[in-house]
Amino acid sequence: MARILCFGELLLRLAATEGDLIAQTRGFAIHVGGAEANVAAALAQLGHDAAMLSILPDTLLGDRALAALRGHGVDTSLIRRRAGRMGLYFFEPGAGPRPGAIVYDRVGSAFAEGLVGVDWSGALVGGDWLHISGITPALGADCARATLALARAARAAGLRLSLDCNYRPSLWEASGGDARALMGALAAEAELMFGNHRDVALLTGTGFAGEGRDRGHAAAQAAFAAFPGLRYIAATDRRVEGAHSHRLSARIDTREGAIQLDEIGLSGIVDRIGAGDAFAAGVLHGLISGDPEAGVRHGLAAAAQKHFIPGDMWIGKAADLDVFWESESLDIRR
Amino acid sequence: MARILCFGELLLRLAATEGDLIAQTRGFAIHVGGAEANVAAALAQLGHDAAMLSILPDTLLGDRALAALRGHGVDTSLIRRRAGRMGLYFFEPGAGPRPGAIVYDRVGSAFAEGLVGVDWSGALVGGDWLHISGITPALGADCARATLALARAARAAGLRLSLDCNYRPSLWEASGGDARALMGALAAEAELMFGNHRDVALLTGTGFAGEGRDRGHAAAQAAFAAFPGLRYIAATDRRVEGAHSHRLSARIDTREGAIQLDEIGLSGIVDRIGAGDAFAAGVLHGLISGDPEAGVRHGLAAAAQKHFIPGDMWIGKAADLDVFWESESLDIRR
Amino acid sequence: MARILCFGELLLRLAATEGDLIAQTRGFAIHVGGAEANVAAALAQLGHDAAMLSILPDTLLGDRALAALRGHGVDTSLIRRRAGRMGLYFFEPGAGPRPGAIVYDRVGSAFAEGLVGVDWSGALVGGDWLHISGITPALGADCARATLALARAARAAGLRLSLDCNYRPSLWEASGGDARALMGALAAEAELMFGNHRDVALLTGTGFAGEGRDRGHAAAQAAFAAFPGLRYIAATDRRVEGAHSHRLSARIDTREGAIQLDEIGLSGIVDRIGAGDAFAAGVLHGLISGDPEAGVRHGLAAAAQKHFIPGDMWIGKAADLDVFWESESLDIRR
Amino acid sequence: MARILCFGELLLRLAATEGDLIAQTRGFAIHVGGAEANVAAALAQLGHDAAMLSILPDTLLGDRALAALRGHGVDTSLIRRRAGRMGLYFFEPGAGPRPGAIVYDRVGSAFAEGLVGVDWSGALVGGDWLHISGITPALGADCARATLALARAARAAGLRLSLDCNYRPSLWEASGGDARALMGALAAEAELMFGNHRDVALLTGTGFAGEGRDRGHAAAQAAFAAFPGLRYIAATDRRVEGAHSHRLSARIDTREGAIQLDEIGLSGIVDRIGAGDAFAAGVLHGLISGDPEAGVRHGLAAAAQKHFIPGDMWIGKAADLDVFWESESLDIRR
Amino acid sequence: MARILCFGELLLRLAATEGDLIAQTRGFAIHVGGAEANVAAALAQLGHDAAMLSILPDTLLGDRALAALRGHGVDTSLIRRRAGRMGLYFFEPGAGPRPGAIVYDRVGSAFAEGLVGVDWSGALVGGDWLHISGITPALGADCARATLALARAARAAGLRLSLDCNYRPSLWEASGGDARALMGALAAEAELMFGNHRDVALLTGTGFAGEGRDRGHAAAQAAFAAFPGLRYIAATDRRVEGAHSHRLSARIDTREGAIQLDEIGLSGIVDRIGAGDAFAAGVLHGLISGDPEAGVRHGLAAAAQKHFIPGDMWIGKAADLDVFWESESLDIRR
Amino acid sequence: MARILCFGELLLRLAATEGDLIAQTRGFAIHVGGAEANVAAALAQLGHDAAMLSILPDTLLGDRALAALRGHGVDTSLIRRRAGRMGLYFFEPGAGPRPGAIVYDRVGSAFAEGLVGVDWSGALVGGDWLHISGITPALGADCARATLALARAARAAGLRLSLDCNYRPSLWEASGGDARALMGALAAEAELMFGNHRDVALLTGTGFAGEGRDRGHAAAQAAFAAFPGLRYIAATDRRVEGAHSHRLSARIDTREGAIQLDEIGLSGIVDRIGAGDAFAAGVLHGLISGDPEAGVRHGLAAAAQKHFIPGDMWIGKAADLDVFWESESLDIRR
Repeated sequence: MARILCFGELLLRLAATEGDLIAQTRGFAIHVGGAEANVAAALAQLGHDAAMLSILPDTLLGDRALAALRGHGVDTSLIRRRAGRMGLYFFEPGAGPRPGAIVYDRVGSAFAEGLVGVDWSGALVGGDWLHISGITPALGADCARATLALARAARAAGLRLSLDCNYRPSLWEASGGDARALMGALAAEAELMFGNHRDVALLTGTGFAGEGRDRGHAAAQAAFAAFPGLRYIAATDRRVEGAHSHRLSARIDTREGAIQLDEIGLSGIVDRIGAGDAFAAGVLHGLISGDPEAGVRHGLAAAAQKHFIPGDMWIGKAADLDVFWESESLDIRR
Repeated sequence: MARILCFGELLLRLAATEGDLIAQTRGFAIHVGGAEANVAAALAQLGHDAAMLSILPDTLLGDRALAALRGHGVDTSLIRRRAGRMGLYFFEPGAGPRPGAIVYDRVGSAFAEGLVGVDWSGALVGGDWLHISGITPALGADCARATLALARAARAAGLRLSLDCNYRPSLWEASGGDARALMGALAAEAELMFGNHRDVALLTGTGFAGEGRDRGHAAAQAAFAAFPGLRYIAATDRRVEGAHSHRLSARIDTREGAIQLDEIGLSGIVDRIGAGDAFAAGVLHGLISGDPEAGVRHGLAAAAQKHFIPGDMWIGKAADLDVFWESESLDIRR
Repeated sequence: MARILCFGELLLRLAATEGDLIAQTRGFAIHVGGAEANVAAALAQLGHDAAMLSILPDTLLGDRALAALRGHGVDTSLIRRRAGRMGLYFFEPGAGPRPGAIVYDRVGSAFAEGLVGVDWSGALVGGDWLHISGITPALGADCARATLALARAARAAGLRLSLDCNYRPSLWEASGGDARALMGALAAEAELMFGNHRDVALLTGTGFAGEGRDRGHAAAQAAFAAFPGLRYIAATDRRVEGAHSHRLSARIDTREGAIQLDEIGLSGIVDRIGAGDAFAAGVLHGLISGDPEAGVRHGLAAAAQKHFIPGDMWIGKAADLDVFWESESLDIRR
Repeated sequence: MARILCFGELLLRLAATEGDLIAQTRGFAIHVGGAEANVAAALAQLGHDAAMLSILPDTLLGDRALAALRGHGVDTSLIRRRAGRMGLYFFEPGAGPRPGAIVYDRVGSAFAEGLVGVDWSGALVGGDWLHISGITPALGADCARATLALARAARAAGLRLSLDCNYRPSLWEASGGDARALMGALAAEAELMFGNHRDVALLTGTGFAGEGRDRGHAAAQAAFAAFPGLRYIAATDRRVEGAHSHRLSARIDTREGAIQLDEIGLSGIVDRIGAGDAFAAGVLHGLISGDPEAGVRHGLAAAAQKHFIPGDMWIGKAADLDVFWESESLDIRR
Repeated sequence: MARILCFGELLLRLAATEGDLIAQTRGFAIHVGGAEANVAAALAQLGHDAAMLSILPDTLLGDRALAALRGHGVDTSLIRRRAGRMGLYFFEPGAGPRPGAIVYDRVGSAFAEGLVGVDWSGALVGGDWLHISGITPALGADCARATLALARAARAAGLRLSLDCNYRPSLWEASGGDARALMGALAAEAELMFGNHRDVALLTGTGFAGEGRDRGHAAAQAAFAAFPGLRYIAATDRRVEGAHSHRLSARIDTREGAIQLDEIGLSGIVDRIGAGDAFAAGVLHGLISGDPEAGVRHGLAAAAQKHFIPGDMWIGKAADLDVFWESESLDIRR
Repeated sequence: MARILCFGELLLRLAATEGDLIAQTRGFAIHVGGAEANVAAALAQLGHDAAMLSILPDTLLGDRALAALRGHGVDTSLIRRRAGRMGLYFFEPGAGPRPGAIVYDRVGSAFAEGLVGVDWSGALVGGDWLHISGITPALGADCARATLALARAARAAGLRLSLDCNYRPSLWEASGGDARALMGALAAEAELMFGNHRDVALLTGTGFAGEGRDRGHAAAQAAFAAFPGLRYIAATDRRVEGAHSHRLSARIDTREGAIQLDEIGLSGIVDRIGAGDAFAAGVLHGLISGDPEAGVRHGLAAAAQKHFIPGDMWIGKAADLDVFWESESLDIRR
């Protein structure tokens, strides 16, 4: 059982209910999320010792987020509390040709305002992996500095680093950070990176022609060349056919070769948010036992399942990942 | 910004909730509708000065309907109040091979009982368009007379007339009115008519052979021949594949030619009621600025979107109509 | 109007709401079910004199189940009450690649514990048919004995016997009963049996090769050979494409020949539980008037409709079965 | 077990949910009611053979009402169906100084429109009591005639008549009927009348001075004098302290004397509608076994309990009426 | 019909549902509020021409708030839109000895960030009254400056000024503003002030001994002495007996004398938020027709009623204020 | 921070929603409870290291219960899983004179069936207190034996024992255990006992005359005499005025003397279940720091608060217990 530290912000999702628009909904359903927290929750359910490094406001909303994470089995003892506001996002689920819409409301959160000067070194003791994403450095210069410092401290303390690029143009634009430089510095510390050809293009400054497997391979080679410490690159490839019908494939590249899984169809999607985080958790679950192929298969299973689970977080057990690939019937299990 | 007067009855929809049958539902969800009111609400949201001409009961239900319309930005100052009952309809949404079912309960409403002797002439001042539909004349002889009188008064006052045929056999049968004569008298005043080949056949007494574009063209020519004042005929064509899967196309005919849009698929339909009214509003939105092609494109966009918006009324902004045609991805917009 | 007695256990279904997993649902929706009770409820709605033979606990839960059945028009005057617990099952509806899950919690119910020594002979007076299923004998040796005794008493009293095989491996395993012997003894009394090639294979000890119609035919012949009193065998054949998309066909075999209906597609499934019971009720509805073809058509219509009706029980009227086959449009009926 | 026929209209209550005003409620909760139906439902639960004489529309709403009544154990086989609308009433529950509000919408119902010419004589066969109320004659001249004809036919057939005055000024005003004459004709047939001093004053044309017991006694004497066939008069007396806090007493007068029960306090009222009907059922439950004192005690218990049961109908068993008076503790019963 | 301009921020209330704590609630119910907007909504319903001066974010949340206000009949054409976030507050309703809790989350809102440099002079044209509160100046120096500038511009344009002190210590502490100086400058412009002895003490720097009427009188005299332009001071006095049981009285002082209304009891409180704003609207409703006594009676009626109306805003009509004082019974109105 | 081990069964509460009876409720709200688990959850929230010793079924229901407890911060690592069913109880909340009703359905649970042969000795390592209740020994002979063995092992390992008598006659009757002997054996090990004069009478075989403080004192003296190891006896005294209005006092007795707190009124009760467990947790919270007076005050505060918190478990923080006694106002905290 590995100990994985996940560093990032917890958010409350407030989503319009009963298929309504925000213009008409009577209320918002509450879900706790955050890219790195979603990874932590999935890893804890998969049997790992997952701990969250974060800062929550000392309000009833912060209490709520912490309890939710704890309910999934995540070690929340390292989470700090301070005055401030909770990061929020409002979600209007899409339907048919009407895309879902997100209104972010995370500026000025206790997390973003409180990172400066926090010393996480004690929290790293006993850790095997540190998982971070490109969202935190995109929140502003302070957040970027804190993320890089933590990544380097973790590496110095002997932890392995997992980085989900999670490129969000709107956040980088708002903060004005130099995404290529900041993400490059983080990638230089990473052993495992989640990112597709667009992410690698951002990091290396070079685009990749072609399609599918070829393009994925080229991007991976470029990333391995640019970042000598990198051992694994994993990515999903999503094709959106409608708000509730997507197709998803996944691959993982090592310096020795690649494993590319066939595309699977996902129709009648319930909630696609957090699928990327479920993928990351599944890949880590496999890699921790040294098996990249198991990783990408676990990752695609978890990602696919997440589309049919309400909320930001994957819910299940390790055995469910196997059932996904083995199941012969989709009829009700009595 | 044109001022469009919409004349007709407001109804309360009472719909079984949570996918239940009326036999088992715990309650009814409330939505405010009515064909012409739906047009008014959409036009107001699209930036026009839309006003409703109607009669509501002086009950809590009438208050509710009025507030809903006002919330969408419609000018409700011309709505009259009197004793009586609110027109209702009960709705059991369909699923798969089980068609949706509507139980109308609008007989004896304050609107239908109260139209006689109402003088709307003051309400016409400042108006650019009057929008009516074939539903009101189908409610009975008094309602038919009142509709025709209003249409003629509007024309005399210089307003342009828009008529949605909205042929409902059950209503005409119940009232025993002469649909062809009454609708013909209204069509004779109209500049814009919403109706397909079946509507034109009813008006002209001649059916149209063939399929698709050819039949649409023939019907339009016949209508233009029969009604010299008519300048535009717009219609959608719907193919129902299942309760939640339809295909929809649209066309507009002018005396100069026709614009026919390709059929689009609508799957995972949420609520198809009011799609025709959304189409009418979209067409008017385009025509007001003198552009029939924009009209039919706005109309089909609004009609398609309405299938995925709960309630009788289209909800959105003018920009959403453009997004419908331009959008490259249907994934969540962050 | 025939009088059909249905013998079996009533269960409460407790289902996670709003698409949630059991891990996260705020509450359970309540539905009353039970294979034989579902048949009784459908037959009562179809105009027959359906009566339930069962035992319910004398608790508020038992009251609830009894009232639900009575609301559907079933004669509940023969149901007995005693101390004990209500049989329950918890249901987590599936979505996409996530199959629905059922957690049975029916061990030790008032029904299973109370069957020994109950004399149902008075209840048989005036009955035309007795309908039983393979679920009750699977609950344990006492239940199996009681079922067989009742079947024989019914036959002796001149009733016709209908048997739904309803093979549930988990129940038989738990009770350790000899399924082949016990079901064979019941089949020997039956005039009508619901069961497919797998059920017949269990009864006869011989499997059936081939596919579709041929395999169905072979199984029917084997059953007719094994059970001289058997006149009809009816079965559906289901292909599961996803949690909400199935394909369903049906056939009925007589000693004179077979009627096989084409497969129909069912997409956007709402609730598939009880579809087999709806099929049984539809078949009985036809057979009671002596028309096997009407039976299988009614059966497939009812089974298909049930997939789109929330709860365990089919809801409708006899005319709805005809509408299913005649309907030209699936659009809303106004 | 007596057979009691209850004659009157079934209504659907549509009530604003979650404490909201009709102006803001998202939906209406559905309850089935009607004064005489409420009595029937309570009597059936108390173990009597209660049958409903009514007319329901042949719509999904009519089906719903019928199933609800049947669920409570009422014999619904005498209910007729015809085209028309369902009687409705909309309810906005009160709170504190804000009184509850009812918007009636029962004009033109299938019941009121369909009573003329219906021959109920077959329905009377086997009946012991007929229960009617002053609501039906208030619906219009046809309804009044039909009620009186039925009352007389019942008396001729040997049934005992129970009449709940249920004086509703707004209904009598709307229909323009002569309440005193019509109600007097019915009272002349009644053995049991539910009515207080105001009802008797209406019937006799004389008011009653004084308070409480004295006034009740004087009114009873006047009624007994005016209606020689009358044997029992029962009434509750209500004092309203706030929307959710009332005080209730009850009395029954015979020609031999009166039984007056002390006032009891009802605070935290959940739903007071139907309390009078529960009282009537409780009184009948006692009188049927010839015990007026048991009647008034059962009546007050049922009336009091009804204030704390959602919906129009009392829900319980005969034993619950005893528990009401015997219970030593109001803490949770484990 | 007077035109009253209300200046202030609109907020979304997100409240835990079904009596749950924020720690456990499944979702938040949405209500639109804001002290000055609540006054505008009530005045519009009372028949006045109420217009809102505010700034809303150009998001789906801003759209929602604007539509809600428009639904109540408020003129929203003067509301400006800009980028930014919506002011929020989270509410956990109290029960028994557990007080309700509010988590404010309004820092950095589009309103607070956007007030600088806005020129409202055009908006003042045609106005009779400007209503402001002490909340806006408490939001920060820019907000305070903008409020004072607007107040003075309104006075210069001939409008009468109404000021609700609405002292919120937590807001003043957070912004660090000089409450006495800033509120004093506003009070110097006001003709009508809502404030009790504590508010006057803050403004004048002198506390008031004694109790009840005497203390109220002394405070009013001090305020009249300090602010020569002040003609009316109105206030409620609340005594909290439990989360759902309060007692409320009200008074208005003029330079000629005072009207003090007796305390009334409010038990079973549903939602006390916005009661002070309802009071302000009621007082203005009376004063606009020059009748301070009507003002304070309307004010106390509206305030009392608001405790029993879900949401931030009073809902009703002018006649409801009279009914409050005249009503003889609190039983359901049929 | 003390480590407290709580031993007992976890139950799911399934409660009728929206004030409905079980006869009519649409669904059941889910809450996780169990007397000892409720204590553990409260202690964890109060800052202690609380761990649960229990057995849960390896089903989705067991997962749910475990996650709920973990969400409150309880150490769930000692909980065992096995095949079997989850203990349930169905709850119909009371109102006014209608008492709440509980239908227990816990027979044959995985906990009760699985206790035999479980070795908890490893779980005791590091523990300071063991908390048990009289519920587990009442479940049957095996459960009683296991409880006593655990209690003795804990004492042998140096833990202090806390025993909540929690006398449930219906459980003891069903299992046929000798309550006096079994509870006496447990009391002989306890340092702290929760029980009132009735519990002590059961243990000592002697009743206690008198009222209130005197009776409490006499019972405590008898208990101290009977059980030499006992140092503290704590109890609440409840008077039920109605389903939602109780009065509660509390006392703690030591060998040196007693602290008796005055009765407090609780009106508008939301959910009284679990109040006794909240009391136990509060007392332990105080006693752990050696302060019996703080214990009884914390206990009564927690118990009172629990009446206004939905669910079985107290929710809050240590500071909330102080606020209960210090709070000056019950108005909303902004």
